[in-house]
Amino acid sequence: MNFKNILIIGLGLIGGSLAAALKGKSGGQKLTAIDTGEVVQKARAMNLVSDGYPLDRHPEIDAALCQADLIILATPIQDILNWLDRIADKVKAGVLITDVGSTKEVIVSTAVKRLPGGVYFLGGHPMAGSERHGLENADPLLFKDCAYVLTEDINVPAALVSGMVKLVEGIGARPIFLSSELHDRVTATISHLPQILSTTLMHQVAQFDQRESLYAALAARGFRDMTRLALSPYEIWRDIFRTNEKNIVPAIDSFIEELRSVRNLIVSPHLGNYFGEAAQGRRQLRETNCD
Amino acid sequence: MNFKNILIIGLGLIGGSLAAALKGKSGGQKLTAIDTGEVVQKARAMNLVSDGYPLDRHPEIDAALCQADLIILATPIQDILNWLDRIADKVKAGVLITDVGSTKEVIVSTAVKRLPGGVYFLGGHPMAGSERHGLENADPLLFKDCAYVLTEDINVPAALVSGMVKLVEGIGARPIFLSSELHDRVTATISHLPQILSTTLMHQVAQFDQRESLYAALAARGFRDMTRLALSPYEIWRDIFRTNEKNIVPAIDSFIEELRSVRNLIVSPHLGNYFGEAAQGRRQLRETNCD
Repeated sequence: MNFKNILIIGLGLIGGSLAAALKGKSGGQKLTAIDTGEVVQKARAMNLVSDGYPLDRHPEIDAALCQADLIILATPIQDILNWLDRIADKVKAGVLITDVGSTKEVIVSTAVKRLPGGVYFLGGHPMAGSERHGLENADPLLFKDCAYVLTEDINVPAALVSGMVKLVEGIGARPIFLSSELHDRVTATISHLPQILSTTLMHQVAQFDQRESLYAALAARGFRDMTRLALSPYEIWRDIFRTNEKNIVPAIDSFIEELRSVRNLIVSPHLGNYFGEAAQGRRQLRETNCD
Repeated sequence: MNFKNILIIGLGLIGGSLAAALKGKSGGQKLTAIDTGEVVQKARAMNLVSDGYPLDRHPEIDAALCQADLIILATPIQDILNWLDRIADKVKAGVLITDVGSTKEVIVSTAVKRLPGGVYFLGGHPMAGSERHGLENADPLLFKDCAYVLTEDINVPAALVSGMVKLVEGIGARPIFLSSELHDRVTATISHLPQILSTTLMHQVAQFDQRESLYAALAARGFRDMTRLALSPYEIWRDIFRTNEKNIVPAIDSFIEELRSVRNLIVSPHLGNYFGEAAQGRRQLRETNCD
C-alpha cells in the first residue's frame, strides 16, 4: 500500500530530511507537518510540505491527525512519548504510526500501552544523521544506503508493514527488522558508546587546555574525527541515555575492560594482531555501509 | 638561510608530501630522496625529486649524505633511530638534521648522543597526516594551517633554526617550539590516546559482529568517524607506543577514570553541562585548526 496522507511531527534534521526525500518521490502523497511556527514557515518556504501547522493550532492539528494514513513522530524521544499520549484518541482507525527515535524499547512499549485497537505502531530508526541538526541541514539523500531499523511486531497488518518497507526503500535506505530489545542493545555499542567516548575525550582535552593552552593548538585531523560527535546537542542525548541506561552502562563497562587490556598490551607484539584485526573490521565496514 | 640541498630519507605520506610541498616553492633548492627502489622510481615518475637512490646504493647515498645542507628523516621512528646511527659520521659539518617522528624525546636524546659536534639536530613533528599512507597519497597541501612542532635546543645555531622555521612556514604550517618532554606528554593525549580508542572500539565491534552479525550493518556516520583511525598501519604505531609508553599509559588511565565518572552521571542532569562544555571546546577547535 501507498500512504496517501503523511503527517510528520517534528521537522528537525531527520524529519526535515524525510520530508525532502519523500517529496522527491512520485507517490502523489500529501505531506503535512507540525512543528513550531518558525520551522513550519521555513518548511513552507523550502516547499517541503503541502500543509504545516504550528504547535498551538490545536483544531488544525486534530484535523490533520484524523486524516493521516501514516504519522511519523520525528521529535526527541521524550516528545515522542508525549505525542503518543496526545494523539492516541485523535487518529483514524487503520492508521500506521511510526517514529525515528534512537531507542526503541521504551517507545514501542509505550505505544503498545497507549494506542487503542485498530491503531498500529511500527517503531523505526534510520541509522543516519550527523552532529548537525535542524531543518536547515535537511538533506533528501541523508538516508541513502543507510540501515533503517523497523521493529518486529506481529500485530501490525502485513499491508501496513509492506507500505512502510516501500517507503524506506523509496528514500534509498535498507530496511532491517529487529526486536526493540536487540536494537537497543546493539546501538548502545555502535552509537551511544561512541558519542560518550567522543564527548569524554573532548571534555578532557578542553580541561587540560585550560591549564596548559597547547592541547587544542596541536590537535590534528585524527583528533577532529574523534571529537566531531561532541558537537551533538545534549537535548537529543539526554532522552537516549534515560531510555537506554540498562544497555549503555554495560557497554561503557565492557569498553573500559577492553581498553584496560589494550593498555596492558601497549608495548607487546600481540598488539600488532589486534591492530590488524581492527583495521580489517574497518575495511569491511567501508565496503558495506553508507559513508 | 635557505637550504640549497635537501635530502629526504623516507617517502611515505609525510616525506612524500614534504617533497611535493617543497617542490612547489621557488627556493631553487635541490631535492634528493632515499627509499626503496620502487618508491624512488615512483617519486621520479611523479617528478617530485631531482635525484633518488634506492636503499642498497651505498656509495650514492654516502655522497648524497655529505652534500646535504638539510636532512629530513621521514621514516617510522625505529628507522629514524637507525638512520641517525648510520649517517652520524657521513654528513658534512654545519648540516641540519631534522625528523618527522611522532614522538620526540627518544629521537632527540639519541640524536644528541650519536651526532658529532658541528652536526645539528632539530626534532620536528608536523601535526598532519591521516589513516592513509604511502607516497601515492602525498599531498602538497597536507600541512596547510597545521601545527608543526620543532623541539627547543639552544645548541642549534640561530641561522639553522630560522631556516627551518622558514621552511615550515613555506609549506603553510605553523611552527610551534616545544620541549621534547612536553610534546610527548601532550601528543599522548591528543594523538596516541585517540588512536587507541579508535582501534579498541573497532576491535570490540568486529568481535561482537562475529558472534551476532548485525553491529557492522547498523553502523552509521558517527561510528565511521570514530573508527577511521583504526585503519592506520601498526608499523607506525608500534614505534610510537614503544617510545612513549611512559606518557601513553597514564593518558589511558586518566581517560578510563574520566569515562567512569561520565558513566556514573549517565542519567544525571549534570551531564548536560558536561556535554555543553565539550561542544564548546570542539567549536573552538573548529575555529583555530586545520581541517
